[in-house]
Amino acid sequence: MTQIEEAREGKITFEVGACARDEELLAAQVCQGVAKGEIVILKNRGRDLSKICGVGKGLKVKVNANIGTSADSSDISTELKKAKIAQKVGADCLMDLSTGGDIDKIRRTIISETNLPLGTVPIYQAAIEAGDINRMKIGAILKVIQKQAEDGVDFMTIHAGLTTEGLTRLKNQGRKMDIVSRGGAMLACWMKRNNKENPFYEHFDEVLDIVKEYDVTLSLGDGLRPGAIEDATDRAQIQELIILGELAQRAQDKGVQVMIEGPGHVPIHQIKTNVLLEKSLCRNAPFYVLGPLVTDSAPGYDHITAAIGGAIAGASGADFLCYVTPAEHLRLPSVEDVREGVIVTKIAAHAADIAKGISSAKELDSKMSLARRNLDWEAQINLSLDPEKARKYRSQSQPSDEEVCTMCGPYCAVKLSREILR
Amino acid sequence: MTQIEEAREGKITFEVGACARDEELLAAQVCQGVAKGEIVILKNRGRDLSKICGVGKGLKVKVNANIGTSADSSDISTELKKAKIAQKVGADCLMDLSTGGDIDKIRRTIISETNLPLGTVPIYQAAIEAGDINRMKIGAILKVIQKQAEDGVDFMTIHAGLTTEGLTRLKNQGRKMDIVSRGGAMLACWMKRNNKENPFYEHFDEVLDIVKEYDVTLSLGDGLRPGAIEDATDRAQIQELIILGELAQRAQDKGVQVMIEGPGHVPIHQIKTNVLLEKSLCRNAPFYVLGPLVTDSAPGYDHITAAIGGAIAGASGADFLCYVTPAEHLRLPSVEDVREGVIVTKIAAHAADIAKGISSAKELDSKMSLARRNLDWEAQINLSLDPEKARKYRSQSQPSDEEVCTMCGPYCAVKLSREILR
Repeated sequence: MTQIEEAREGKITFEVGACARDEELLAAQVCQGVAKGEIVILKNRGRDLSKICGVGKGLKVKVNANIGTSADSSDISTELKKAKIAQKVGADCLMDLSTGGDIDKIRRTIISETNLPLGTVPIYQAAIEAGDINRMKIGAILKVIQKQAEDGVDFMTIHAGLTTEGLTRLKNQGRKMDIVSRGGAMLACWMKRNNKENPFYEHFDEVLDIVKEYDVTLSLGDGLRPGAIEDATDRAQIQELIILGELAQRAQDKGVQVMIEGPGHVPIHQIKTNVLLEKSLCRNAPFYVLGPLVTDSAPGYDHITAAIGGAIAGASGADFLCYVTPAEHLRLPSVEDVREGVIVTKIAAHAADIAKGISSAKELDSKMSLARRNLDWEAQINLSLDPEKARKYRSQSQPSDEEVCTMCGPYCAVKLSREILR
Repeated sequence: MTQIEEAREGKITFEVGACARDEELLAAQVCQGVAKGEIVILKNRGRDLSKICGVGKGLKVKVNANIGTSADSSDISTELKKAKIAQKVGADCLMDLSTGGDIDKIRRTIISETNLPLGTVPIYQAAIEAGDINRMKIGAILKVIQKQAEDGVDFMTIHAGLTTEGLTRLKNQGRKMDIVSRGGAMLACWMKRNNKENPFYEHFDEVLDIVKEYDVTLSLGDGLRPGAIEDATDRAQIQELIILGELAQRAQDKGVQVMIEGPGHVPIHQIKTNVLLEKSLCRNAPFYVLGPLVTDSAPGYDHITAAIGGAIAGASGADFLCYVTPAEHLRLPSVEDVREGVIVTKIAAHAADIAKGISSAKELDSKMSLARRNLDWEAQINLSLDPEKARKYRSQSQPSDEEVCTMCGPYCAVKLSREILR
């Protein structure tokens, strides 16, 4: 039985119990969330994970880091370094999006050498193994899903909602950026060249049968996500979201855990609407957003445009943030980009948790403020989301009075007000 | 006559005309905003500025960069470098917050060598010249204001709303971080030690008389701004805001341009309320926010916590963002910190402008998306908010196919979808 099936029978699994403890919630509450499909537990039945990662309603907002090779850069050891630094600085999950080199070996290495739930996008490997995207066969695609599930992959992105009808709507409507999802574009090519419906949509029950056996969580990808502010919340995007809602229901009915992927590029004033729409159309299935980036014009800083969007999305109810690195739109991220991307996305998730009223998040801020009030620099550094950077900054500029910092020196407001208010 | 007085008579000044052209608005609209006190023009009557900076309703969100020496670091040439880099990467204004070295010389150097509106916090110089904060005299404080106005300072922060009553409320209520405003703490010390009311509050008319002569815009400082998420939107903060609203009205009645300063540290879900409160209590006077930071726990990344808060505040109607650098809470910022702080705050302001529907902001994003659609890398780099960083990132990782990047290589979604959708 899968987590959702066990939860429906009211059984508190080991995973549900561990998730509840970590989230400081009652196990019954998490169990009910899993049963309703409002919470997913990202764990392949065959995988041994020391920390259980739940995603969904009432839980802390989680952060995913994408790693993986490309045709231009396919060194396994570099990708493993990225996986390890992401884990070290606090990513909750990883996705291996490799499209270069020995894909099986990379995936297996990451699974064996890290201890975080791992996601994949099986269409990538299917396309690469076919040699030519247009020659992919559904049997081979399903075999890739099977192989990756056997290896222990915990969640998989399947772009099953990108249908012929959706593509027609997209074309009739017109768009600034057309398709920016890699998996979505691969499928659209295949559909067009072969004049056939989306194979994941047509064979969705077979996909469900495979992932169910391993309790792999389906992450229904948004192949038509907007890749420009101007395209946000358009008919093509929302049409696909409706179909994803239908597919999510089919998955849940079959006992498969499922979450929904979301945009992309969305202006600030549309983010809350996007979250509410997902929750409404997909019956509160966990929402996994990529960014959203709140402007198109800041390449080199898209970890920040995504942090702005992700924080707002999280505060509005999005459950899971896919990190974006400073390299977005420019190149494959380096190890340092991965580190920066994870930390900044964690800051966004933490800020969202505070807005949601998550106790542990508020407590961390409370402790930090107390350390500031006490001018206790060691405590401030240790409580920081990135102690390494905080320590470096402080040490680079030593004040003559150790109690304060070089910004205000003797005019430190905390020190001055302590003298008169306490 | 000051800008607000001229506008009330329906006169389109040179400054109002220039501001309207820059904002792509009708001069009559800007004139009306200035007359109502909803827009301020940051320009000392005696100063010659090549670009006019308006702040307020319907205008683009502006960005200020704080520079200035401290007791521990008082090198003029470093501060001048900071001023110049801030101007180069797009700050709309500067504030010289120097508290170390020859304060007059630093201010005059910055005024003569840069071409942006300059703000100050005169209480700093008054405290330093008095030798001991508690020995400051109102006559000397007013003389500092006079001297700085004569030098050409365009706007001044005056913490006139921090009253004895407010301090009593703060103490009765209790707070995590008490006072974190440097000027606020200086005044609170002085008031306590001398057992007197806030001198700016008591002598507000005299302050108005001086600044009016030079058309210096008053920036009413929030000495009781929250410095911890837990303290946000508390009675002490809102009590002071009510008084600032009263003082703003007095200033406007006397023909002095005025804006209101705001927090600080505010959780995401309270930011919109903070903006609405300011607009309501201060009759739509322009709102100048510091951050707000959406978490206390990310020293080293407070440019980002502030960008999240600033973008939300700007989208909610805040008019002016004071930048925060990565050095916040840790040390005086370096030249590189200033550069990073300005760019990241500009990204927040730009994202807010998009949400507000500012045409030029939407056009920039539209052009960037077109460049992406065309895989025109040179155009993408040139349209970036920081072309230097975008170029560096792209050049560090060259794809084998120059049309794409090393992230997706041959699986570039833009290239794939171009083949089938166009």
